Amino acid sequence: MKIYTKKGDQGMTQLIGKNVKKTHARVEAYGTVDELNSFVGLTSVLLQEEKHEDLVMDLTKIQHELFDLGGDLANVTDKHKWTLSNKAVEFLEAKIDHYWDEAPPIRTFILPGGGKASANLHVCRTVARRAERLVVNIQEASDELPPAAIKYLNRLSDYFFAAARAVNARNGTEDVLYERGKDVFK
Amino acid sequence: MKIYTKKGDQGMTQLIGKNVKKTHARVEAYGTVDELNSFVGLTSVLLQEEKHEDLVMDLTKIQHELFDLGGDLANVTDKHKWTLSNKAVEFLEAKIDHYWDEAPPIRTFILPGGGKASANLHVCRTVARRAERLVVNIQEASDELPPAAIKYLNRLSDYFFAAARAVNARNGTEDVLYERGKDVFK
Amino acid sequence: MKIYTKKGDQGMTQLIGKNVKKTHARVEAYGTVDELNSFVGLTSVLLQEEKHEDLVMDLTKIQHELFDLGGDLANVTDKHKWTLSNKAVEFLEAKIDHYWDEAPPIRTFILPGGGKASANLHVCRTVARRAERLVVNIQEASDELPPAAIKYLNRLSDYFFAAARAVNARNGTEDVLYERGKDVFK
Ligand code: B12
Ligand code: B12
Ligand code: B12
Ligand SMILES: C[C@H]1O[C@@H](n2cnc3c(N)ncnc32)[C@H](O)[C@@H]1O
Ligand SMILES: C[C@H]1O[C@@H](n2cnc3c(N)ncnc32)[C@H](O)[C@@H]1O
Ligand SMILES: C[C@H]1O[C@@H](n2cnc3c(N)ncnc32)[C@H](O)[C@@H]1O
Ligand SMILES: [Mg+2]
Ligand SMILES: [Mg+2]
Ligand SMILES: [Mg+2]
Repeated sequence: MKIYTKKGDQGMTQLIGKNVKKTHARVEAYGTVDELNSFVGLTSVLLQEEKHEDLVMDLTKIQHELFDLGGDLANVTDKHKWTLSNKAVEFLEAKIDHYWDEAPPIRTFILPGGGKASANLHVCRTVARRAERLVVNIQEASDELPPAAIKYLNRLSDYFFAAARAVNARNGTEDVLYERGKDVFK
Repeated sequence: MKIYTKKGDQGMTQLIGKNVKKTHARVEAYGTVDELNSFVGLTSVLLQEEKHEDLVMDLTKIQHELFDLGGDLANVTDKHKWTLSNKAVEFLEAKIDHYWDEAPPIRTFILPGGGKASANLHVCRTVARRAERLVVNIQEASDELPPAAIKYLNRLSDYFFAAARAVNARNGTEDVLYERGKDVFK
Repeated sequence: MKIYTKKGDQGMTQLIGKNVKKTHARVEAYGTVDELNSFVGLTSVLLQEEKHEDLVMDLTKIQHELFDLGGDLANVTDKHKWTLSNKAVEFLEAKIDHYWDEAPPIRTFILPGGGKASANLHVCRTVARRAERLVVNIQEASDELPPAAIKYLNRLSDYFFAAARAVNARNGTEDVLYERGKDVFK
């Protein structure tokens, strides 16, 4: 069979268990998780070039988890188990603490950037937050959400923030502080 | 004349044939086609570096077609001809078949990534799907759509998928299979 | 304190002065300004590699201004001063005129691309326009907007257009004209 099935040419598509419009809140959400996954794949290549092997391993784990999440979001059948678990959230929290300690403390916002991998981690951070907003949007349609979904994406964006700062610290690149910023990190 | 005309400073802008808010569904759609076009331009540079000349030529053709599509989406005048035609769709289908045969067969989802050009092709794939959702959204406003629009963007995302896999195959990079994935490709 | 506060795990979050859903129009808008800021950070790294020092300095200034804008958009308290001013808009206009003169005149649309930095400037251009649409969307909720917000983002996208063309001109890369394009630039 060909990968193009032409089934979606009238604007409809399939969830696991239901046919819906391509603008359905769930399709918007897992489509954006897929977009995030692509930026993570790109960032992984750049981290490999800069030899941050531990982060490359994290990102591969995260890419699998984004598929777990996407599958959970696509699934509207009655009896099914969630694939993404709270363990993935706890793993991220441990990693955030770890990378956070590698970078010098900050009180103000910092400009996203520094090096190629680090800048791409900030892109991942903000696309993760876009995905998070679209998952919250499913919730507003008063539809059942995978229990770990919001938590996972929220922590994931903090993970990318901590990781971006650790990469800059390792490369000897100082984060530029937002010059008109008040103290926001407590 | 300067490129900044200041006409849009109150939040209104022009289609071909009508003045509308910048949040109009058509503006969202062709604005995203323009965003996609920019990622395609970037990916083309990376494919050139990796010497995939056939793909570079495809992407230039696609960039022109994205302008055809954007113009069609912007046009709300009564009598006008569509610029994007079904021939462009058929060309993509032939290319999909061609690149699909270059990569080893898969049954499960694969992690987007591998190399720089390939990862960027996955970004294009997912941004094309975002654009497709916004074109379907015009349809919901029960507004006339360019006949080839959804089909073209749908096939384009499959084209990027096949191309990303072909590039990895040529570079000797194996696609990583989603580890908890069932057989989804038939 | 840790950067992850877990406060947002139920889908709510804070503006400066109010608690709202993460799908609130203001959160969508400054979240996208943050995404734009990340792409600007990435583009800055690439411009540094290609030794366009003047553009690197512009982009750093712009990154600070995007934080000014984000803070203004987040602020719904009664008495506060706007941080982003019209001076920033005028600065962009002067820069547009300057870079515009560096590149050969055009009458038709051009394909986004050419080199790595230039292609990324086009990505910034189109993400700035996405941010602009989301700021206009706040306005539709008949909510008070920072006076410079739309103007700034609008001019910023023209800045990225002019800058992308100047970079190509400096690198001796000719912009490819959209082949089926009529004269659109007057
Ligand atoms: C807006 C905002 C953002 C925006 C920034 C907007 C912009 N400028 O572009 C964006 C979306 C970019 C953002 C991003 C992030 N943010 Co943020 N953000 C905020 C928010 C809502 C406001 C920050 C701000 O600008 N405050 C401005 C100051 C002036 O306001 P204020 O401190 O509330 O002070 C007011 C009053 O309290 C009073 N006041 C203050 N001090 C005093 C003193 C006295 C004596 C008196 C009388 C009054 C007074 O007057 C002030 C003016 O109104 C805060 C939450 C909050 N409500 O504080 C989180 C917050 C600072 N962010 C947070 C985080 C984690 C992040 C991110 C890391 C998230 C991520 N994973 O991406 C990133 C980091 C970005 C970066 N590059 O550094 C956390 C920090 C947690 C911590 N441990 O400290 C906070 C606290 C939210 C939270 N609870 O989780 N953020
Ligand atoms: C969700 C989804 C996605 C999500 C993935 C979500 C995630 N995990 O992140 C995203 C958006 C990422 C995605 C992307 C793509 N997808 Co997709 N996707 C699907 C979808 C809707 C579900 C796939 C899935 O996870 N199934 C899970 C399994 C377990 O479900 P199932 O096979 O339906 O099985 C259920 C029942 O049938 C039953 N069952 C199954 N087997 C059996 C056997 C027995 C005996 C019994 C009793 C019951 C039973 O139980 C299961 C549990 O509910 C399918 C369409 C569909 N409804 O199957 C398309 C589908 C697999 N996708 C497709 C395509 C083409 C793609 C893309 C290439 C599109 C693109 N151009 O980008 C990409 C590839 C991405 C990649 N990196 O590999 C095509 C494949 C066409 C083909 N030739 O096979 C499909 C079939 C859609 C279609 N008709 O066009 N996709
Ligand atoms: C759609 C559009 C876009 C789309 C393009 C869609 C696509 N093809 O993908 C997108 C979103 C990509 C875009 C981007 C940009 N655009 Co634009 N765009 C337009 C718009 C609305 C239409 C352009 C078009 O395709 N016209 C097609 C022609 C055929 O239409 P027309 O000229 O109106 O002609 C019709 C009639 O007038 C009549 N007609 C025309 N000539 C004649 C002659 C005679 C004798 C008769 C009887 C009839 C007649 O028939 C025509 C058919 O309907 C114009 C505004 C406008 N309404 O013209 C701005 C416009 C051209 N864009 C503009 C700008 C600045 C840009 C950007 C630089 C913005 C940015 N910062 O990103 C980019 C540049 C992109 C690039 N890569 O080059 C400006 C140019 C300002 C200037 N100084 O000239 C314009 C004029 C808008 C404005 N007022 O600000 N744009
Ligand atoms: C750091 C600040 O970012 C905002 N915030 C919280 N979640 C998101 C999201 N998904 N997208 C954008 N902004 C968000 C809140 O205002 C928070 O306080
Ligand atoms: C492969 C799966 O992706 C989903 N799908 C179809 N079209 C889109 C789109 N434009 N954006 C995101 N997801 C989409 C459907 O669920 C399809 O079955
Ligand atoms: C150049 C053309 O782009 C459209 N336009 C104006 N503002 C935006 C925006 N923020 N996003 C997308 N398109 C826009 C209008 O149609 C304008 O005429
Ligand atoms: Mg399809
Ligand atoms: Mg304009
Ligand atoms: Mg948080």
